[in-house]
Amino acid sequence: MAQLHHFPFLKSFLLVLTTLTCVSGKHFRTTKLGVRNRFTPKTADIQGTHNSEEYEVYNYTQTLDHFNFKTESYTTFQQRYVVNRRYWGGPTNNSPIFLYTGEETDIMGDVKYIGFVRVLASRFNALLVYIEHRYYGTSMPFGSKEEAYKNGNTLGFFSSEQALADYAQIIVDVKKDMSAQNCPVIAVGASYGGMLASWFRLKYPHIAYGALASSSPILYFLGLTPENGYDAIVSKDFKVSRNQKISSESFVTPLTVINATKPTFYAQSTSTSCYNTIRESWFEIDRVALQPHGLSKLSRMPLNTSQDLKGNLESRYDAMAQYDNPADNYLQSFCNAIDGAGEKTYIFDKILAGFAPIYGTSCYQVYDLKFNKHSGWDWQSCTEMVMPMGRGENDTMFQADPFDLDKYSKECEQVFGVTPRPYWAPIEFGGYDIIAWMLALQWLRTLIGWLHNEKPRSRL
Amino acid sequence: MAQLHHFPFLKSFLLVLTTLTCVSGKHFRTTKLGVRNRFTPKTADIQGTHNSEEYEVYNYTQTLDHFNFKTESYTTFQQRYVVNRRYWGGPTNNSPIFLYTGEETDIMGDVKYIGFVRVLASRFNALLVYIEHRYYGTSMPFGSKEEAYKNGNTLGFFSSEQALADYAQIIVDVKKDMSAQNCPVIAVGASYGGMLASWFRLKYPHIAYGALASSSPILYFLGLTPENGYDAIVSKDFKVSRNQKISSESFVTPLTVINATKPTFYAQSTSTSCYNTIRESWFEIDRVALQPHGLSKLSRMPLNTSQDLKGNLESRYDAMAQYDNPADNYLQSFCNAIDGAGEKTYIFDKILAGFAPIYGTSCYQVYDLKFNKHSGWDWQSCTEMVMPMGRGENDTMFQADPFDLDKYSKECEQVFGVTPRPYWAPIEFGGYDIIAWMLALQWLRTLIGWLHNEKPRSRL
Repeated sequence: MAQLHHFPFLKSFLLVLTTLTCVSGKHFRTTKLGVRNRFTPKTADIQGTHNSEEYEVYNYTQTLDHFNFKTESYTTFQQRYVVNRRYWGGPTNNSPIFLYTGEETDIMGDVKYIGFVRVLASRFNALLVYIEHRYYGTSMPFGSKEEAYKNGNTLGFFSSEQALADYAQIIVDVKKDMSAQNCPVIAVGASYGGMLASWFRLKYPHIAYGALASSSPILYFLGLTPENGYDAIVSKDFKVSRNQKISSESFVTPLTVINATKPTFYAQSTSTSCYNTIRESWFEIDRVALQPHGLSKLSRMPLNTSQDLKGNLESRYDAMAQYDNPADNYLQSFCNAIDGAGEKTYIFDKILAGFAPIYGTSCYQVYDLKFNKHSGWDWQSCTEMVMPMGRGENDTMFQADPFDLDKYSKECEQVFGVTPRPYWAPIEFGGYDIIAWMLALQWLRTLIGWLHNEKPRSRL
Repeated sequence: MAQLHHFPFLKSFLLVLTTLTCVSGKHFRTTKLGVRNRFTPKTADIQGTHNSEEYEVYNYTQTLDHFNFKTESYTTFQQRYVVNRRYWGGPTNNSPIFLYTGEETDIMGDVKYIGFVRVLASRFNALLVYIEHRYYGTSMPFGSKEEAYKNGNTLGFFSSEQALADYAQIIVDVKKDMSAQNCPVIAVGASYGGMLASWFRLKYPHIAYGALASSSPILYFLGLTPENGYDAIVSKDFKVSRNQKISSESFVTPLTVINATKPTFYAQSTSTSCYNTIRESWFEIDRVALQPHGLSKLSRMPLNTSQDLKGNLESRYDAMAQYDNPADNYLQSFCNAIDGAGEKTYIFDKILAGFAPIYGTSCYQVYDLKFNKHSGWDWQSCTEMVMPMGRGENDTMFQADPFDLDKYSKECEQVFGVTPRPYWAPIEFGGYDIIAWMLALQWLRTLIGWLHNEKPRSRL
């Protein structure tokens, strides 16, 4: 009976492999950070609007390695940053400067799409300075992405510590240029960029008066956070989303230091129907895959294993939860459609019915999820940003897949020729202590401000 | 009349050049940091005693470059550290750990001679962990000092930021080994080591609960402190030291964040006799040097210019002031002897009479004061630790000698093939803001401790 339903499923869920390179078995998922990613539904709500006349784009001649004095460390590259003076109260008022610590993307995307910093700048009369992270966008050492990403030795200068030092160099220079030495700097960022904002505050407290980190998993490192943290929260989202309008904030809260916006409201009831449908689908995919020509029944394009399909589906579920803007309500749409398909509908058809309102009914791409040597975030995941993603047998809506550091490291070595340093980030950037520390500082700032009844100052 | 006095002067003040390399004109003095240096009088009082049975010496396999992921960054070297458990209250009492942040010297010298950390450890039941700074003592990358100091590319990994990261790695490891995760770490250091202690607190607040910096000029960078700061205070010391018992603390106070010990008492009256004698001596040296065979009249060994002699004398005056332990009273002895020589005594004889009780009456070495490619501190001075030393016409007891960054940089390029980054340290480590910041933190700590009435904790 179940088999009869394969063809309708295949007809509409046409899978097109985007690469013919070998895709063998399970590959490691990196954390899916970023304010958008390739699985983000196209209908995602974009906050704010973009007016290119507001922005001035500059390049800063940046030092390649701030902490090393070898000859090549003195090499420079052009780092892009963008200034928006529209909301600024100016230096004579000591109006604040919001330093947007660019994350793993082209900074112009942030300038266009990140609305909350503009809203905040407008409210606090702040100067906006967006700085692009090295090795992203046009901020490429060695002249081009091709050269910069050539191998481990050209990528070697690509680290979060170097990025923070870049921000320090540029913001001090910008303050000087604008005679804004007395204007307090607040670091602001989202996702990995928010981690950077927090860490900028940690490492450069003499430059940053404060930091605002939106949806930033600063504790998602080995030994600090359970490896199933991400998947468990995504799964929980799918449990509570039936017929309930819910903000995406609810799932990021446990990973987040400070949320820029508050969730509108939460679901009050739960349903396991949506959750169970997804969970059962993995086993059905495996069952079909084991049939004669099973993989070709799952996709018109060749799959190496059923994992190619499962990994891509998983990434779409992740994206639906992670980017579930209140206006879009992906999870609600998905789960309502699953339920609407009726209990007796074949499981693949239920899933397809769920995807239809979000991703449409045409073919979906199947991406190669292996570490990609052209991906900056994959390089970072293979060096410092080792954020363990895994889960056990029954703790999520996904199949068991424990995090395996040895295998992870081997894949990094194969792709980048680099060995991760998984225990370094908690030493360099702190574990739970940083949270207590930040809360204490915030309290100190408030108290000092209250005692002195004056505006914050920074003299560097 | 003055000329008649040359020969007695030469007879007793025999100068022996230790190097025959070209010593041309004025060379740049680096700041004379360190808990001792080659100009420190031999009679210097050594605090405390050393019992080798108290110490356990270890090596830690350290990463060459913490902030870079090139293949060579993964190279490791053996970094030495020393543990003294004698005073420790143990992990069950959450007794503190004093992390002695080694400065520009062999760590065993600190272990033997730095008494105040032992006194403090005894008082606070602290574990003592002394960590040797990379590129000093036996903590040499590339297997040996010869290899490590070969050129700018082997020295490139020699920076304060790397040293701080080394300390973080080791202390986290030591805490784990000793099940001392809950024991608060206090960074302690002297001179440059105290700067490191301050900066360790700044950069790793999640690891170091506090810091104690003794005699550490953390603000002696371009644009932060007048370049004549050091020489002016040395000069002032020579003015106030006549017949007055005075602690060496008085002159370091303006450069120091926190002094481990308090000065015993201060001189109440001043005298310009000692100061004036030194000041006039420079012009007399120049006058003699211009005579036929003038330089050979000043020294049995050849001098290239009178500056060779003047620079060495200057360094001895500096050392007498900087290392003027209360028990030794170098300045008092020197100035008393100058005055005792009588006003009509030839100026060189006065100076010699002053030196006699401190450096003895046998020959004094004349050192080459040029940047030395075998000196770790000179490398640091030529990269990040650009601490401008200079003075005007009449602001010190020395001749005018303004700091000249261009010439300084050129000498660095000649000796090490490296260009200084003089503006980096204030960005990386902060200017005046760090002081306000530290005071605020100290106040916060005190307040929190008072509110909670509990011992400090750190969980990393």
